[in-house]
Amino acid sequence: MTLGEIFVSEMMGTAALIVLGCGVVANVALAKTKGNGGGFLMVNWGWGLGVFAGVYLAAVSGAHINPAVTVGIITSGAEEFMPGIDVTIGSTLTYFGGQLLGAMIGAFAAWLAYKKQFDEEPDPANILGVFSTGPAIRSYGWNVVTEVIGTFMLMVVIVAFAGTPSGLGPLAVALLVVGIGASLGGPTGYAINPARDLGPRIVHALLPIRNKGNSDWAYAWVPVLGPLVGGALGGWVGSIIPLPEIL
Amino acid sequence: MTLGEIFVSEMMGTAALIVLGCGVVANVALAKTKGNGGGFLMVNWGWGLGVFAGVYLAAVSGAHINPAVTVGIITSGAEEFMPGIDVTIGSTLTYFGGQLLGAMIGAFAAWLAYKKQFDEEPDPANILGVFSTGPAIRSYGWNVVTEVIGTFMLMVVIVAFAGTPSGLGPLAVALLVVGIGASLGGPTGYAINPARDLGPRIVHALLPIRNKGNSDWAYAWVPVLGPLVGGALGGWVGSIIPLPEIL
Amino acid sequence: MTLGEIFVSEMMGTAALIVLGCGVVANVALAKTKGNGGGFLMVNWGWGLGVFAGVYLAAVSGAHINPAVTVGIITSGAEEFMPGIDVTIGSTLTYFGGQLLGAMIGAFAAWLAYKKQFDEEPDPANILGVFSTGPAIRSYGWNVVTEVIGTFMLMVVIVAFAGTPSGLGPLAVALLVVGIGASLGGPTGYAINPARDLGPRIVHALLPIRNKGNSDWAYAWVPVLGPLVGGALGGWVGSIIPLPEIL
Amino acid sequence: MTLGEIFVSEMMGTAALIVLGCGVVANVALAKTKGNGGGFLMVNWGWGLGVFAGVYLAAVSGAHINPAVTVGIITSGAEEFMPGIDVTIGSTLTYFGGQLLGAMIGAFAAWLAYKKQFDEEPDPANILGVFSTGPAIRSYGWNVVTEVIGTFMLMVVIVAFAGTPSGLGPLAVALLVVGIGASLGGPTGYAINPARDLGPRIVHALLPIRNKGNSDWAYAWVPVLGPLVGGALGGWVGSIIPLPEIL
Repeated sequence: MTLGEIFVSEMMGTAALIVLGCGVVANVALAKTKGNGGGFLMVNWGWGLGVFAGVYLAAVSGAHINPAVTVGIITSGAEEFMPGIDVTIGSTLTYFGGQLLGAMIGAFAAWLAYKKQFDEEPDPANILGVFSTGPAIRSYGWNVVTEVIGTFMLMVVIVAFAGTPSGLGPLAVALLVVGIGASLGGPTGYAINPARDLGPRIVHALLPIRNKGNSDWAYAWVPVLGPLVGGALGGWVGSIIPLPEIL
Repeated sequence: MTLGEIFVSEMMGTAALIVLGCGVVANVALAKTKGNGGGFLMVNWGWGLGVFAGVYLAAVSGAHINPAVTVGIITSGAEEFMPGIDVTIGSTLTYFGGQLLGAMIGAFAAWLAYKKQFDEEPDPANILGVFSTGPAIRSYGWNVVTEVIGTFMLMVVIVAFAGTPSGLGPLAVALLVVGIGASLGGPTGYAINPARDLGPRIVHALLPIRNKGNSDWAYAWVPVLGPLVGGALGGWVGSIIPLPEIL
Repeated sequence: MTLGEIFVSEMMGTAALIVLGCGVVANVALAKTKGNGGGFLMVNWGWGLGVFAGVYLAAVSGAHINPAVTVGIITSGAEEFMPGIDVTIGSTLTYFGGQLLGAMIGAFAAWLAYKKQFDEEPDPANILGVFSTGPAIRSYGWNVVTEVIGTFMLMVVIVAFAGTPSGLGPLAVALLVVGIGASLGGPTGYAINPARDLGPRIVHALLPIRNKGNSDWAYAWVPVLGPLVGGALGGWVGSIIPLPEIL
Repeated sequence: MTLGEIFVSEMMGTAALIVLGCGVVANVALAKTKGNGGGFLMVNWGWGLGVFAGVYLAAVSGAHINPAVTVGIITSGAEEFMPGIDVTIGSTLTYFGGQLLGAMIGAFAAWLAYKKQFDEEPDPANILGVFSTGPAIRSYGWNVVTEVIGTFMLMVVIVAFAGTPSGLGPLAVALLVVGIGASLGGPTGYAINPARDLGPRIVHALLPIRNKGNSDWAYAWVPVLGPLVGGALGGWVGSIIPLPEIL
């Protein structure tokens, strides 16, 4: 497989994740939608099923669609991202690039789908909230801790998936993300994926949205650093705990 | 397989989709039901599980139960709708016909099931909303954009399903529809299926329902054109992006 | 397999269905529970996952756990309920008997689990609602129609399950029941199973519950007749529509 | 497999269960979270998907992650917890130890993730409720009955899983726990697992949380005894009812 195919695959998968993920937040948060006030569990299902769609579209590259997963695979000690794709600086950056561009495309598509709702939304916090995460209580250190724990759970269980084959396919990681969102999303809105937060934040900064406020760049490092650390820890721990042999 | 069998298969599957789909909207929207006010996520599950039921009933014809899917299969470059069913004008129109008649039957059955609730419903908007979609903010151009994006997501992921076999069977597309509904249903109520909208709208126009208003024919072209364009784009893009080889 | 084993199997499965099904209604409807006001979708999941549990426990007898399913299998033209269990008057009555006794046991167990909540519940309608279904708008004829449509959907899709094998196991019928409940449960509370309604109603009549009202026997025939007719129709239609050959 | 590996496996799995389970309660119950007021069904999904994650992490030891399951396997008459792990006092205590320590680690991690929310929470009942269960109506005898019934259902269906293989893998028990929670969680908050309640209660007693009240040790025996009795009964009944032969 070529690096170009990896790039396109991760880009498509991450775009699907983000259009559905940012879309469900738009549906719940923006005032003039049919799903306004639909609740946190609806947001969890929307993001989880965004993962579901994204994993199918990015299957050819192993469906990381998240730089924290790419990093976690490296720290797990794997020598290949996929059979035939060696772990190198070049391939790693290709994954990152496809993920970030895909996240930007997905956020742009979500904005297109909700264009009229953005036009009529009066609250800048709701507008930014569709694109990027933010803390319920701002405290950079503890916000990082929350993101580390959430992404650690994501990555360590992904490593464990290999030992217990099922017929769930991409549904397994989708449900895992529903669960992490419901359970650990309360303090920071669970980025658990640097591309998921940074890509849409860049789009928020670029798009001409009436009533949009600033893009809260002061917080932007938290949902990048936290997930990268959590993913790295999760991949490493997943490689040292007892798990069934992959058959 | 005969064209007659295809017609009946698509008709049965689409009828099941619509009786459950229109049914859940009736349950949530009409005043005198046990599920009144049940929320948007409940509507998403109802439609998604309507797809689930419909796919089982239409399995013999490939379970399109949606003209946009039929069109997307054509634009993907496939030469057969199913092994043994060539893509021709005749077979295409047979799919369309079964889908439209099935949608009408399903809407009629949903009306029968909620007959007393329709009799006592005072709000014409709620009554029409059980049958057909409508925009949260009326803007024909942007409403088309939303329907294009939603149906594109549906079709491109359906194409990708083939590359990642799982044991989910019809649940995969059902969950995809739950996700698209939660995430992209906010502006227009996610028709993402011309038959789903047009068939019940015709039934709404025909049935003698107390307090029913007009059938909003001015909007009726949006949920037909948008899904057809989105499905066509999704099928084509699905045929050019890198996806795993079907084993 | 002996008739005794069939009886115990159906009894266990139906008891599991009902303790979880009546339990979720108790949790949502009775005033002093942790789930009070949890919503209609929660009730749908509770009943659907009650089916999930029940099907595992009754697998040895084919997991009808519903007289309407037993009848639908007969009208589908099958000669055996399970490989080795002929369709006879004796075996049919054995299914019915196990189902009814199981439903009574399940309702009794749900009452035990919520004993203190029943003691402190002031509203007789909530108390009866935990045990048996009732109409949102009383109209015996239309209430029968609703139950016929819901049970028809259940049975015709169950027949279709055989043609599309998946790895979902008992989850397929569980999700189908979640969907039918969300979509067609609004007018009558979806008995779609004579034992589910009659067994708990008998237990309601027998148990000494403070503030319980009458058991609404005038309505009791509706959720028996409607599901039997719907199941019979569904089994028959499932046998004549085009479905994939069972491999 | 060594006892040490069993200990670590059960510890990891139970920690995952509890960080997600206590996490979802924190998200719904604590005032300053994004999921505050998310509803009982969201709590059910959070705990169920906590089981989902935990079972993957503890697969090598059979994924009990619950002393009541360990006891139920013993009363079912099995001679091995897993192929190669004999049922002995030593192995049983190893399971219990890993489960209890894991539950404590999970509760500690949930507290870390929600540290700022705990700091600003005024209500001691909400704080304790994140860690441990408590009754809606205090009545020790009936509270035990509720926990016995819930855990009986858990264990008897787990025994039945073996007879109906599916491709659901760990999702089967996860969904079972969603269902038991929705249906039987109303009176006591469904511990149905002694480690799930006792471990976090110890952590609650030890942690320095502003506004925390007492740890309600008077109730602590109920969610230990009830689940152990229920699990023992469920394992035994599962061994005597007719179930399909394991293939």
